[in-house]
Amino acid sequence: MKIVTAVAPVNIAVIKYWGKRDETLILPINDSISATLSLEHMCAKTSIVCSPDLTETKFWLNGELQPTDSKRFQNCLREIKKLVNPNLEYLSWNLSICSENNFPTAAGLASSAAGYACLVYALAKIYEINGNISSIARMGSGSACRSIFGGWVRWQMGNTTDGSDSLAVQIAPETHWPEMRVLVLVVNDKTKTYSSTSGMKTSVETSTLLKHRAANIVPQRTKEMITAIKNKDYKTFAKLTMQDSNQFHAVCLDTYPPCFYLNDTSRAIIELIHFYNQNKGETKVAYTFDAGPNACLYLLEKDVAEVIAMINYVFPPTSLKSDYFKGDTVPSKKLDEVSLK
Amino acid sequence: MKIVTAVAPVNIAVIKYWGKRDETLILPINDSISATLSLEHMCAKTSIVCSPDLTETKFWLNGELQPTDSKRFQNCLREIKKLVNPNLEYLSWNLSICSENNFPTAAGLASSAAGYACLVYALAKIYEINGNISSIARMGSGSACRSIFGGWVRWQMGNTTDGSDSLAVQIAPETHWPEMRVLVLVVNDKTKTYSSTSGMKTSVETSTLLKHRAANIVPQRTKEMITAIKNKDYKTFAKLTMQDSNQFHAVCLDTYPPCFYLNDTSRAIIELIHFYNQNKGETKVAYTFDAGPNACLYLLEKDVAEVIAMINYVFPPTSLKSDYFKGDTVPSKKLDEVSLK
Repeated sequence: MKIVTAVAPVNIAVIKYWGKRDETLILPINDSISATLSLEHMCAKTSIVCSPDLTETKFWLNGELQPTDSKRFQNCLREIKKLVNPNLEYLSWNLSICSENNFPTAAGLASSAAGYACLVYALAKIYEINGNISSIARMGSGSACRSIFGGWVRWQMGNTTDGSDSLAVQIAPETHWPEMRVLVLVVNDKTKTYSSTSGMKTSVETSTLLKHRAANIVPQRTKEMITAIKNKDYKTFAKLTMQDSNQFHAVCLDTYPPCFYLNDTSRAIIELIHFYNQNKGETKVAYTFDAGPNACLYLLEKDVAEVIAMINYVFPPTSLKSDYFKGDTVPSKKLDEVSLK
Repeated sequence: MKIVTAVAPVNIAVIKYWGKRDETLILPINDSISATLSLEHMCAKTSIVCSPDLTETKFWLNGELQPTDSKRFQNCLREIKKLVNPNLEYLSWNLSICSENNFPTAAGLASSAAGYACLVYALAKIYEINGNISSIARMGSGSACRSIFGGWVRWQMGNTTDGSDSLAVQIAPETHWPEMRVLVLVVNDKTKTYSSTSGMKTSVETSTLLKHRAANIVPQRTKEMITAIKNKDYKTFAKLTMQDSNQFHAVCLDTYPPCFYLNDTSRAIIELIHFYNQNKGETKVAYTFDAGPNACLYLLEKDVAEVIAMINYVFPPTSLKSDYFKGDTVPSKKLDEVSLK
């Protein structure tokens, strides 16, 4: 019997992934960039047992049995197994896979990114595979490929039809910009109304603005973002982050029928942050929103205390639907293996 | 002494005007199309007294004295006076102008369009001017030029720098599509947070999606909309109307800082209408939102009763902040003169 447990971090994009050019292989229509958060507050954890005594492969997510015939799960397993030494004695044994997120699942908090990164990493460990497994994680959930690395990560869209060049690379390690912090503001921890998968599919089919964004705006913005990160230029980084979040949600609204992820509380947070920055006379905080109403704020360590106080003042914790902060976390460690037997 | 009273209708755009290429002349970056509503429920009313006894020109809006040195007011007055017979004895007399809207002002319900159309029309009457005064109304408030005509109206953006070809033309009279109805759902009748003027200025300066929309999307969409109106093709008309409303709000979100006009109630209305159309198996209702959270629904007379019942069921009147319906109105009469002495 083999047992592996792994944990994997969440990543929060600052240049957004929205739209696939290949639904099965999960190949995107533009590059994206994210920071990987520390494992301290939010992570996915996966344990895998591989044993000759198991009569079938089973997969639990947060205590609920999942179908193992899903395309995404099967694709990850198949691609991992392609890399396994065919003489490995336990290759034919069944698996018992148990995954958990310590934060709300499918609430637009990158749970599937952490989850699939963790699953693929744990599979790679159990089958003793080395190398860049980000393109395999990508087949589980696109943005999962970015959670394979720590620090600042770019998912290169790639050009080939087989997706072999659509993988994540590290722009800078977590040590590069040690002052950077992320605050996660949980506006609503319920499962989102529009899944990212169907939302982005409809966007690709119906939004003329998305085509323009992917082809003509993101390439330049990606370059500018990489430069801003490398130079630790917070002002430029913050503006690009907010603009790209807004443009992603604009594209969702240009989708037909439209998909909405921001709500009135999200909008109030956006307005508050612009008001705060304007009053401070400099950019102190940047917001970004994924496919849900919850805000992620990027800011420097020196400003964390004041910003938390300001947000607690404007949004007393009782006005929100869940724990207010998931804690301040930093772009941080590489995918971390907790225990490996 | 000369006295004139005029009323002017509201128009609701189905292809949206957003963005000026000239701030002073109010020249737009794309064509727009609207229907002019009947005067029955919503209108602006302006009375002008012209008398040698008046010591200065004064202007009241909804009972409040307004500055008469505003550029917009002065531009309208100057352009009208250019067309006046210089021998007209009362050309030098001062004016007492009194305007009222019978619906919320500056709440994204096209109050300035009706207001300036009415002002310019009343001025034209008092000075005995004939001809297309839509380009003068445009200098008061861009979309006012469309309220000069009844039925279905196109504001041609024009190309000249002096704006002489940026004017409204009628696509079809109010009798063309007699089954068409408009429902106005007042979500919030408060003055909007972001004025249209400053919002669209910021959009032009910062939104890359707006440039693409104006140059590459609206021209084709305008053609399709005109064809749909001429053919009374409700299905195509409705889809284009909803798509263009959504794209306009997408551009607002792509603006930096973003401007928000839709709120959670607006979004709930959008979702309800897509749900309703889907359940009916055909497009029965189309929504459109201007620079505010209030919805305008375009639908055919046969469906009005059921749609009103459905909306009253989902949004009981007490859940909204104001009178629920401003009434069902039709694309209707030409600018109507009530009294002219």
